[in-house]
Amino acid sequence: MRIALDAMGGDFAPDVNIEGAISAINELPEEVSLHLIGPSDLLQSRINTSEFGGRIKIIHAEDVIGMGEHPTKAFSQKQKSSIAIGYALLKAKEVDVFCSAGNTGAMLVGAMFTIRAVEGIIRPAIASFVPRENGDYGIILDVGANAEVKPDVLVQFGELGSLYARHVMKIENPKVGLMNLGEEEQKGTLLTQAAYQLFRLNNKVNFIGNIEGKDVFNDKADVIVCDGFVGNVILKQAESIYDLLKERNISDPFFERFNYESVGGSPILGVNGNIIIGHGVSSALAIKNMIHQAKKMAESEIHTIIKKAYDE
Amino acid sequence: MRIALDAMGGDFAPDVNIEGAISAINELPEEVSLHLIGPSDLLQSRINTSEFGGRIKIIHAEDVIGMGEHPTKAFSQKQKSSIAIGYALLKAKEVDVFCSAGNTGAMLVGAMFTIRAVEGIIRPAIASFVPRENGDYGIILDVGANAEVKPDVLVQFGELGSLYARHVMKIENPKVGLMNLGEEEQKGTLLTQAAYQLFRLNNKVNFIGNIEGKDVFNDKADVIVCDGFVGNVILKQAESIYDLLKERNISDPFFERFNYESVGGSPILGVNGNIIIGHGVSSALAIKNMIHQAKKMAESEIHTIIKKAYDE
Repeated sequence: MRIALDAMGGDFAPDVNIEGAISAINELPEEVSLHLIGPSDLLQSRINTSEFGGRIKIIHAEDVIGMGEHPTKAFSQKQKSSIAIGYALLKAKEVDVFCSAGNTGAMLVGAMFTIRAVEGIIRPAIASFVPRENGDYGIILDVGANAEVKPDVLVQFGELGSLYARHVMKIENPKVGLMNLGEEEQKGTLLTQAAYQLFRLNNKVNFIGNIEGKDVFNDKADVIVCDGFVGNVILKQAESIYDLLKERNISDPFFERFNYESVGGSPILGVNGNIIIGHGVSSALAIKNMIHQAKKMAESEIHTIIKKAYDE
Repeated sequence: MRIALDAMGGDFAPDVNIEGAISAINELPEEVSLHLIGPSDLLQSRINTSEFGGRIKIIHAEDVIGMGEHPTKAFSQKQKSSIAIGYALLKAKEVDVFCSAGNTGAMLVGAMFTIRAVEGIIRPAIASFVPRENGDYGIILDVGANAEVKPDVLVQFGELGSLYARHVMKIENPKVGLMNLGEEEQKGTLLTQAAYQLFRLNNKVNFIGNIEGKDVFNDKADVIVCDGFVGNVILKQAESIYDLLKERNISDPFFERFNYESVGGSPILGVNGNIIIGHGVSSALAIKNMIHQAKKMAESEIHTIIKKAYDE
């Protein structure tokens, strides 16, 4: 398996990216290789690839898309950037999965321009993971790719999340919950009311009804469906709780899993390839865990499972 | 000052309501009286009002609006319910403030049907309070009265929250932040983008721009503006964090303030009177704190300040 890592993505690149890559390679089985994408001179000055028996390769990319650049403009104009080259490799099937903690918008644009959305998918989504009291994780989507959506898009998020939960997270018959401001069917906005009715008619997912903000961390639903605005607010609020606990020197195994570093990254679901987006502030630990997650995603072949589900 | 309390509102009424009222009366100055609204036989069997030197009165209401009843239907049909009678007293200025942990929808409907919205206010809002790292509270609105709003409504929420922060919470020149999925001006939905521009042109509030889910508990903004859907999710997520900490026996002064009981209730802003809505699961402590908050609200005369602000 060949995992491509944007060596220049994130606020602390390339140092933490290289550190994370080295930690990961030591934990990964022999057959996995890492492809670090970035300016080769720079990367070669930081890492001696010969130490890793050919399992770490450097792929030259002379340009970098900055964290604050306009996604569409930057992606189309910087075809020699590490993100653009990562997507080119993925599209050409020279790597099995591509991950980056760089410009999220450019990662999304890159996916849509190169490997493209799966036919039948209205809007691909960014998924993330929330720790749960029972020890495992739930999946929440969308968390930022689509601030505004239509009811049928929410239902597809439920389908995509359900496929991911089943095939990657190995949750049997995952429970799909619609984030709302009350449990009752008639609660919420026109969007959630309509989505509720569409979910009821949908036989692809195990819809359990509306859930609320208090249900993010319990196991009422395995798949939490919301628009990218709400999902983004939920996720960032959860992250801030971890920071607040840490500042107070409160440590607890459950809350430790609120740390974004332990998750590593967020898959883009509904595109023709395996993509993971990392947090902009990624540390070496986060990069390492993003690489582990990339491996899991590539092994599951989830994007072909999704493609097949929408072929029928 | 005369504070009316719906003795029948909430999941554990009337017992915790009476217990909370007794605790409150012992802490409140002599000039404050409490008016408990509910079936007089029932209430008299639970409390001996003569013990309180006339400071606790029972006002008979033979009917009760259940927690699950349809708000508009229940309020119009049950004119002898504790909620309807509370509003009648408030409208007749026989009490200075009315609070209830009962059916939130019926409380909102009651406000709109009796004391009505302040002229110039498009949509009254329910405000709530979030504890902050610096030791005080921020105000967040709307948290559930309006799941769907237009940009000008969000701007009014900012104005209402600002007036409350200044006159009740005594925050000078309160900073108003717009909840969004990124800090940059162009981020978000059509709603938040338009609201951002309207806020920029607004000279009534100290608009500091977009804030994110990670800023709920810091002091970036004193007033957090969002639609009722997002505000409700934020609030319920915060409450669940408190429960999770408690289950793990983690106690910390900062997180103690995540407990809804310490806040007690949420004012309705933008109506012609002082109204506080409590949590359905209110304990005696929550009821007591709701009464204290009711006093603070009535003292501030915030509704007349709001009325005056929109008269000009």
